Amino acid sequence: MKKIRLGMVGGGKDAFIGGVHRIAARIDGQFDLVAGALSSTPEKSRDSGQALGLAADRCYGSYEEMAEAEANRDDGIQAVSIVTPNHMHAGPAMAFLRRGIHVICDKPLTATMDQAEELAKAIHDAKALFILTHNYTGYPMIRQARAMIAAGDLGELRVVQVEYPQDWLTEAAEQTGDNKQAEWRTDPERSGAGGCIGDIGTHAHNLACFVTSQKVQSLAADLQSFVPGRKVDDNAHILLRFDGGARGMLWSSQVAPGNENGLRLRIYGEKGGLEWAQEDPNYLWFTPFGEPKRLLTRGGSGAQDAANAVTRTPGGHPEGYLEGFANIYAGAADAIRAAEAGESPDLSLLPGVDAGLDGMRFIAAAIKSSRDDAAWVTL
Amino acid sequence: MKKIRLGMVGGGKDAFIGGVHRIAARIDGQFDLVAGALSSTPEKSRDSGQALGLAADRCYGSYEEMAEAEANRDDGIQAVSIVTPNHMHAGPAMAFLRRGIHVICDKPLTATMDQAEELAKAIHDAKALFILTHNYTGYPMIRQARAMIAAGDLGELRVVQVEYPQDWLTEAAEQTGDNKQAEWRTDPERSGAGGCIGDIGTHAHNLACFVTSQKVQSLAADLQSFVPGRKVDDNAHILLRFDGGARGMLWSSQVAPGNENGLRLRIYGEKGGLEWAQEDPNYLWFTPFGEPKRLLTRGGSGAQDAANAVTRTPGGHPEGYLEGFANIYAGAADAIRAAEAGESPDLSLLPGVDAGLDGMRFIAAAIKSSRDDAAWVTL
Amino acid sequence: MKKIRLGMVGGGKDAFIGGVHRIAARIDGQFDLVAGALSSTPEKSRDSGQALGLAADRCYGSYEEMAEAEANRDDGIQAVSIVTPNHMHAGPAMAFLRRGIHVICDKPLTATMDQAEELAKAIHDAKALFILTHNYTGYPMIRQARAMIAAGDLGELRVVQVEYPQDWLTEAAEQTGDNKQAEWRTDPERSGAGGCIGDIGTHAHNLACFVTSQKVQSLAADLQSFVPGRKVDDNAHILLRFDGGARGMLWSSQVAPGNENGLRLRIYGEKGGLEWAQEDPNYLWFTPFGEPKRLLTRGGSGAQDAANAVTRTPGGHPEGYLEGFANIYAGAADAIRAAEAGESPDLSLLPGVDAGLDGMRFIAAAIKSSRDDAAWVTL
Amino acid sequence: MKKIRLGMVGGGKDAFIGGVHRIAARIDGQFDLVAGALSSTPEKSRDSGQALGLAADRCYGSYEEMAEAEANRDDGIQAVSIVTPNHMHAGPAMAFLRRGIHVICDKPLTATMDQAEELAKAIHDAKALFILTHNYTGYPMIRQARAMIAAGDLGELRVVQVEYPQDWLTEAAEQTGDNKQAEWRTDPERSGAGGCIGDIGTHAHNLACFVTSQKVQSLAADLQSFVPGRKVDDNAHILLRFDGGARGMLWSSQVAPGNENGLRLRIYGEKGGLEWAQEDPNYLWFTPFGEPKRLLTRGGSGAQDAANAVTRTPGGHPEGYLEGFANIYAGAADAIRAAEAGESPDLSLLPGVDAGLDGMRFIAAAIKSSRDDAAWVTL
Repeated sequence: MKKIRLGMVGGGKDAFIGGVHRIAARIDGQFDLVAGALSSTPEKSRDSGQALGLAADRCYGSYEEMAEAEANRDDGIQAVSIVTPNHMHAGPAMAFLRRGIHVICDKPLTATMDQAEELAKAIHDAKALFILTHNYTGYPMIRQARAMIAAGDLGELRVVQVEYPQDWLTEAAEQTGDNKQAEWRTDPERSGAGGCIGDIGTHAHNLACFVTSQKVQSLAADLQSFVPGRKVDDNAHILLRFDGGARGMLWSSQVAPGNENGLRLRIYGEKGGLEWAQEDPNYLWFTPFGEPKRLLTRGGSGAQDAANAVTRTPGGHPEGYLEGFANIYAGAADAIRAAEAGESPDLSLLPGVDAGLDGMRFIAAAIKSSRDDAAWVTL
Repeated sequence: MKKIRLGMVGGGKDAFIGGVHRIAARIDGQFDLVAGALSSTPEKSRDSGQALGLAADRCYGSYEEMAEAEANRDDGIQAVSIVTPNHMHAGPAMAFLRRGIHVICDKPLTATMDQAEELAKAIHDAKALFILTHNYTGYPMIRQARAMIAAGDLGELRVVQVEYPQDWLTEAAEQTGDNKQAEWRTDPERSGAGGCIGDIGTHAHNLACFVTSQKVQSLAADLQSFVPGRKVDDNAHILLRFDGGARGMLWSSQVAPGNENGLRLRIYGEKGGLEWAQEDPNYLWFTPFGEPKRLLTRGGSGAQDAANAVTRTPGGHPEGYLEGFANIYAGAADAIRAAEAGESPDLSLLPGVDAGLDGMRFIAAAIKSSRDDAAWVTL
Repeated sequence: MKKIRLGMVGGGKDAFIGGVHRIAARIDGQFDLVAGALSSTPEKSRDSGQALGLAADRCYGSYEEMAEAEANRDDGIQAVSIVTPNHMHAGPAMAFLRRGIHVICDKPLTATMDQAEELAKAIHDAKALFILTHNYTGYPMIRQARAMIAAGDLGELRVVQVEYPQDWLTEAAEQTGDNKQAEWRTDPERSGAGGCIGDIGTHAHNLACFVTSQKVQSLAADLQSFVPGRKVDDNAHILLRFDGGARGMLWSSQVAPGNENGLRLRIYGEKGGLEWAQEDPNYLWFTPFGEPKRLLTRGGSGAQDAANAVTRTPGGHPEGYLEGFANIYAGAADAIRAAEAGESPDLSLLPGVDAGLDGMRFIAAAIKSSRDDAAWVTL
Repeated sequence: MKKIRLGMVGGGKDAFIGGVHRIAARIDGQFDLVAGALSSTPEKSRDSGQALGLAADRCYGSYEEMAEAEANRDDGIQAVSIVTPNHMHAGPAMAFLRRGIHVICDKPLTATMDQAEELAKAIHDAKALFILTHNYTGYPMIRQARAMIAAGDLGELRVVQVEYPQDWLTEAAEQTGDNKQAEWRTDPERSGAGGCIGDIGTHAHNLACFVTSQKVQSLAADLQSFVPGRKVDDNAHILLRFDGGARGMLWSSQVAPGNENGLRLRIYGEKGGLEWAQEDPNYLWFTPFGEPKRLLTRGGSGAQDAANAVTRTPGGHPEGYLEGFANIYAGAADAIRAAEAGESPDLSLLPGVDAGLDGMRFIAAAIKSSRDDAAWVTL
């Protein structure tokens, strides 16, 4: 099976998520990174590209140049990963989609709702695929949780508790001059109006919706910017009402010392409960009401088809963040191959523009609600 | 040192919390249970009393009779534990206080705000002491958490996450006819208007306030009654604003399968974080920002005076719920002895009428807020 | 029901385990401590006794005096707790047994095998009961583990892993002059030839045998004294062969930094496995082979009769070390009442002289094996 | 940087570890798999190779053919991964080494000591590198543990507890006819005389030696074959004496229900303790004696250079088994590039023939000791 030729926009030096995308694309050997507009200047882009083994003539100084050139090559890229800050998602995505090149784009969809709507229209009109890397949906036990709920193992859902605390912005890291990640992620021009809520709150929101197969219908949000001088929220407390009847709470924070990347999901229904934590992702705790709690493990005896389909090693051989991310790429590869074969790709488990728009609406609603003193806002 | 003569109102057969109070009173050997109005009928009360080794003439058919008779004995009780359902707190408490008998009363303060205010007035006018068993404040590592925060170890507080999930009311246990606990705790006539919010939400609220030394200034609550036919809330989602500037979330539930008694408190400030869970109460997790998380253990090298003062065994010899409860009784014993010696008792760590009123206001505010679609309500 | 009149030998100031016995005796309200020879001098004994509320004339200067005097009182003690260092177990035990007073004695049985055999003979000849406080057998989930194995839930047993690491003797605490516990527990004159192996290794050995209902048939031991100047072992590595066919390993240590009181038991059979840790004693992990691991909790839905019989509170209300210890006292109370009523007491779950002799043989065998370079020694 | 051209021997259908090696080789993008003798027949090998995207003319029917052909190509492989059953390590390894092709070989070194010595001689005589995938040494927090001990953070080492329980051979999986892994791993002809001890005991042994920088000097082993009809050991209990003075215990098992891949290492010295578990590999617990336990996390504030050097993502983004394995491949890539540049490769952290021979001696000693009733055997 031939590898899919992949390009990348963003992901040069000082980048975090670009390297993650590259590993994720490599793990299953389905992609071959062959081109890139990795940095904002041609020289830097070339430096970064050569360090990654790209041919010099496929290290581009801008995404426009890259889109144009690659579209004209016989061996041009079939897909592109967009791993730039949020305000730089829509432009590249549209440039590649327009030329029939599939897009794998980091989340959130864009920095603003206007950009999101413009991009959505472009995606709608394009023949190429658009995949949004809400990577936490790629964890095997998250896939299983979704399947178990869909199968009715919890009965009617009642309560959804989702949280995503971190601590890396406890102090004003964006003001020290040496933390590019902190800078752009707290700069509304680049990240959008949402800070914590956009950066990680969207992951929490997306995960809750993915696993429950319900959408957030309305929310009441109390956002804070605890760190003096910070331009965006760094902590969010949100009440949720889902369209399937469940009620929930969402907490996301970047100022909670002792929390590294504490995405956690707990779901309770009339028949049982499920609990999962991203930092120990191979475990899914399942309690049928009235029975002892059971530890379901990836690769273990309690693992079901939905998990096994995206599992590489037996139980007890922990798979982590990169493998979960790689499952999005593996899904993208399948979809791209199907599309290129003229078949209808299975997008049922792949986050795309709809999830992206939901996320943008979530951010906008949270900000609006918080400005209105936590009034309910319908998404 | 002579034991304090103790009576009890409530706590006969089918009771849960009465037995807990009795063990808590015994653990440190400071009380001697000598009288009781344990059940609602004289015969049952006598049966229960004799099983507990009470003299027949001190097993009373009603609390009024008991208050009267004991007040007139030279060896009458010095203190009484009130362990009846919530609507039966105020009457007995006032009857004993009026006669100079100290009262140790289960929480919440009363079933209604009217009762609470009447009782508060009586407590104010009485010479005897009134102690409310918000027992979770008796855990050693909770005492230490409070002391650490007071000492500034976390800096200015920002975020308080408190939750108290249980699962025992996932189904309609109050309708099966064989669960007296479920019956009265879901009956507004006996428990008050709050269900879950009154039964355990008040514990969560109290604990957060105790540890932070801050009060909840306002809240926005979304309460649910998920189980068909249930007359009170069985799940509560609440946004909190504290008078010291912290923001928080409170979740309490009795319909979350897989949770037995999951009271958990997490507090984050500008300098660090603390995390504690009632089901593993000997551990306190402390993260000074930028350093590795530390496991502070009751009796261990990280335990401080505040914890050591209420600790009976070395680290690794787990103390639990009953020992925590006993610490309230031990504090009550000290206070009673001081009062009887004409000294001023140290009530700084003992929950009393103020905590009780705060709890009643919390319940009322949560219900009011929820009825008003989660609008902010000032306590 | 009248309380059993109890005396105590040892347990004055600077003692650790005496206070534990007193709380354990109080928790269920079945004993009344009325007499004591608490310290080695009459004055100290009186001071300690009065602090505990004993009548002055029942604070004795020696156990002989106490045994004599109490035996002659109409209201003399019915039972005595012996909580002295190991070399002071046999003398008092025989003095009280001889007079028909039941003995509850701390472990190990004695300091030497000679003392053990003499005491065993005395117990055999006495009408009074002798109970040894191998307190860890009192934990509810340990009782359940034993019952599950007896019921065949694991099938034929294969592997027993038991360990008991502590760290309090990592440095030469016995040489600082201010640690009486360290002094006598590392002094062969008082503790016997076993150090760590006698102090806590016996608990590990006893627990493994209690839960499996198998005896250790032979062992191969490698004991160490890591701390310079220490007169007894402070770490033990032992291979075990059980008479029912299981093989095992036992590790006990007092020099393992980071371990407070880490008694842990894991048992595997042809059909399943059980895992339990003393520091989290309310949990029992059960894995039927080929199925997900289940968390059985004291008071929870997976708790069985054997656990429920010694449980005081619902699931999620953690019971700990003192409650487990109290279960031995509760069992002793039942046995004493039966004996005094002329009935045959149920001693099936109460450690006594047989467990005590097994423990002494275990210590002796371990020391002998280690001296012989870990050769197998039959018990 | 150009990718290293890699071949593979073994790793066709029904293989487990071959797929792991391939992912490990891909994660950092330093190898390009271009040739293979993947199965024991030419057809199968071709099928497997084509599924992996190998050119048809580089799918070989035997390793001899492959070694010959690749050595003669200008673009022939620079390195080969050998992922066959143990008895098939030495032959291929020597064939490639002889031709100057670097070898990355799965552990244990070989099936027999004779093979091991022959191979060792060949490695000694070869110019190409030989790397043994004791992959657990690649975990970042294991690298850090080794560095901390080397830096004296624990002081003189005293106690090493290492264990590796699994449960997949609890029943006679090798006799069902559908489990190739179970078949060869319990067949002395293919796996060597050691069963569990060779398959996973060697990992435990290697890890303990790697982290402590001490060697096992002598051991006393009690091996069992619990499953009827099994030809090799399935459980091992071993006492250890290290050349640096530490004493230890090693337990490995494949019949312990509830254990998936439970490699765990605990090390205690005069100044502190370290604890690590493979199933939660991002955590390292460090207790300086007399201080609270600290949770050091990969990517977190307690992570040191040794860990950071092999870390790809920030704290809280769990890396797992495949990333640890990939760290061996990354080290191999560095070494191979150095060797090909005529420089001296840094092999200090890469397991090679010495670790392999130690492992073979460990297996042999354990079997000899067990046959001699757990007598001490010097390695």
